[in-house]
Amino acid sequence: MAASPCTESPSPLHWDGTTLRILDQTRLPAEEVVLELHGTPDTVEAIKRLAVRGAPMIGIAAAYGLAMELARDETPEALERAAALMAGARPTARNLAWAVERVTAAALAAPGRMADAAREAAEQIQREDEAASATLSRYGAEALDAVLPDGPVAVMTHCNSGALAASGRGTGLGVIASLADMRPVTVLACEARPLLQGARLTVWECARLGLDHQLLVDSAAAGLIARGEVHAVVTGFDRVAANGDVANKVGTYGLALAARAARIPFVAAGPSSSVDLRLGTGAGIEIEERDASEVLSVGGSLVSVAGTRVRNPAFDVTPAALVWALVTERGVARPVSAETVAAVA
Amino acid sequence: MAASPCTESPSPLHWDGTTLRILDQTRLPAEEVVLELHGTPDTVEAIKRLAVRGAPMIGIAAAYGLAMELARDETPEALERAAALMAGARPTARNLAWAVERVTAAALAAPGRMADAAREAAEQIQREDEAASATLSRYGAEALDAVLPDGPVAVMTHCNSGALAASGRGTGLGVIASLADMRPVTVLACEARPLLQGARLTVWECARLGLDHQLLVDSAAAGLIARGEVHAVVTGFDRVAANGDVANKVGTYGLALAARAARIPFVAAGPSSSVDLRLGTGAGIEIEERDASEVLSVGGSLVSVAGTRVRNPAFDVTPAALVWALVTERGVARPVSAETVAAVA
Repeated sequence: MAASPCTESPSPLHWDGTTLRILDQTRLPAEEVVLELHGTPDTVEAIKRLAVRGAPMIGIAAAYGLAMELARDETPEALERAAALMAGARPTARNLAWAVERVTAAALAAPGRMADAAREAAEQIQREDEAASATLSRYGAEALDAVLPDGPVAVMTHCNSGALAASGRGTGLGVIASLADMRPVTVLACEARPLLQGARLTVWECARLGLDHQLLVDSAAAGLIARGEVHAVVTGFDRVAANGDVANKVGTYGLALAARAARIPFVAAGPSSSVDLRLGTGAGIEIEERDASEVLSVGGSLVSVAGTRVRNPAFDVTPAALVWALVTERGVARPVSAETVAAVA
Repeated sequence: MAASPCTESPSPLHWDGTTLRILDQTRLPAEEVVLELHGTPDTVEAIKRLAVRGAPMIGIAAAYGLAMELARDETPEALERAAALMAGARPTARNLAWAVERVTAAALAAPGRMADAAREAAEQIQREDEAASATLSRYGAEALDAVLPDGPVAVMTHCNSGALAASGRGTGLGVIASLADMRPVTVLACEARPLLQGARLTVWECARLGLDHQLLVDSAAAGLIARGEVHAVVTGFDRVAANGDVANKVGTYGLALAARAARIPFVAAGPSSSVDLRLGTGAGIEIEERDASEVLSVGGSLVSVAGTRVRNPAFDVTPAALVWALVTERGVARPVSAETVAAVA
């Protein structure tokens, strides 16, 4: 895994047919460093330490990670080992397992040209994600535009669901950017402690896109919503169960509660590859608990007493009843129910 | 304002009859530095930059700040200037204005011995706060103990409402510490971005008190509550309106929403001097908006793009309907209504 500093703004993810290059999201916004990935172990490592993150982007990176591994060793045994390693990188987002299953199936279906088939499947996953982002962004923006009061609006988002998390302009942030094509929008970006993907990544993307934006700490969100300063909340999602329960970055559930109390729409947007119809409800979604050091330190400096015990769930589950609309490239599930979710999965 | 490093653990606030010494809360937990305050301007400065904080503690410090000013210039003009300066230090907590009004009235009622009268009033405020903390902590713990399931419980708190925020063991944290005298308690401390009073101060206090505790980021709170891992939420308060609406550290409203959704008690505890019967509802409470730098930097390192616009309200308002009980030294208001609030004000 080679790192190189970069002078002009690089693409979040670039595939040249043999090597995957990703913008190291742990270094943003201070530095734009591109990582070269060459196989499964270094891709797994990049996913685990969140150098690449966001449910759809993890799926794409995992697909290329497997394809690169097969280009080195084109055997079912190598595929099995790599797939198991890759699938264990992170537990919550649906897309990782989905991409691993899809690339594995494509490779196994093409004996003699497993590496080519895996590469083609990965490239197809990326193309589909790009199309999905564009379509779901438009659907979500149209649904919101139809119900929001005329004129400028403030739309809150959490963590990062933009071009660093998915193709194009992303999922949740893609919806907001598409809405900003239709009317003036101010993005209210929650910082998303512990790793500050909102402060670091969403703010950086808004600045690049020329989207008007303001930053806030996560716990300020509910109060601003209650004061009538927010017109809608829009996020991505990491996994959606068959009943419409949504697993997303920890803190999403609190935003959804506040949105419901203020009677403003809470929209969760993502590709259908994040929908997991095999899970009945969100209770079945494994919530990743990450290392205490993420909470105890910020930017290398200790913010509490060393050795303090920590709870650090990376995700939470928002019940379907709090979701105004679930948006995928297949349409808008609203009201959210098993039937409408199945229709957009 | 002289600062001296300290070897043994100093008192959060110490008055020797002429000089006020406070533990600089901006330096905790890394360093225990005692500040000496000698008059109103340095006390105002210490309050503004949160070297001393917490509604009751601000009231005590403000009272001594005025008394020290009068010891230097015992005239109604000096009192008027000092009172105006002090009252403007921070807008949201009721106690600051309350303490200024009380010391001013005492001094004006004692021509010829204004300085002595102011000092006596300040000392009386501190004595009363100490008694109030002990009493309200017991009331709150008894109210919770009566309704919580038997055995060990996990109690969430926000920001810091302990010995650094009020006398004795504090208000919200005082209630929790008193409950821990009655049964095993684990304190779940929300970190309280931007200034991390939970991570820095509550964790430090829990360690000193020997209270079992865990730290979490603010946005993890609602999800843990929804998962059934929390038995009650207990905080202090900065100002309570006549109808029971509660202004407290930003993020409190979100915790109260989550507690209600999970049907667990949300208790707000503080001295009656924080209750402001002149305000009908929380809509009349001025919410302090603090500097962007608090959000953009942590421990001196930038966590977002320099120059990003920021929303940084220091408080939010929790509607009375979400408060299971309001506790002061005068009793427990439950259910919360204008009548029960008036009875504990």
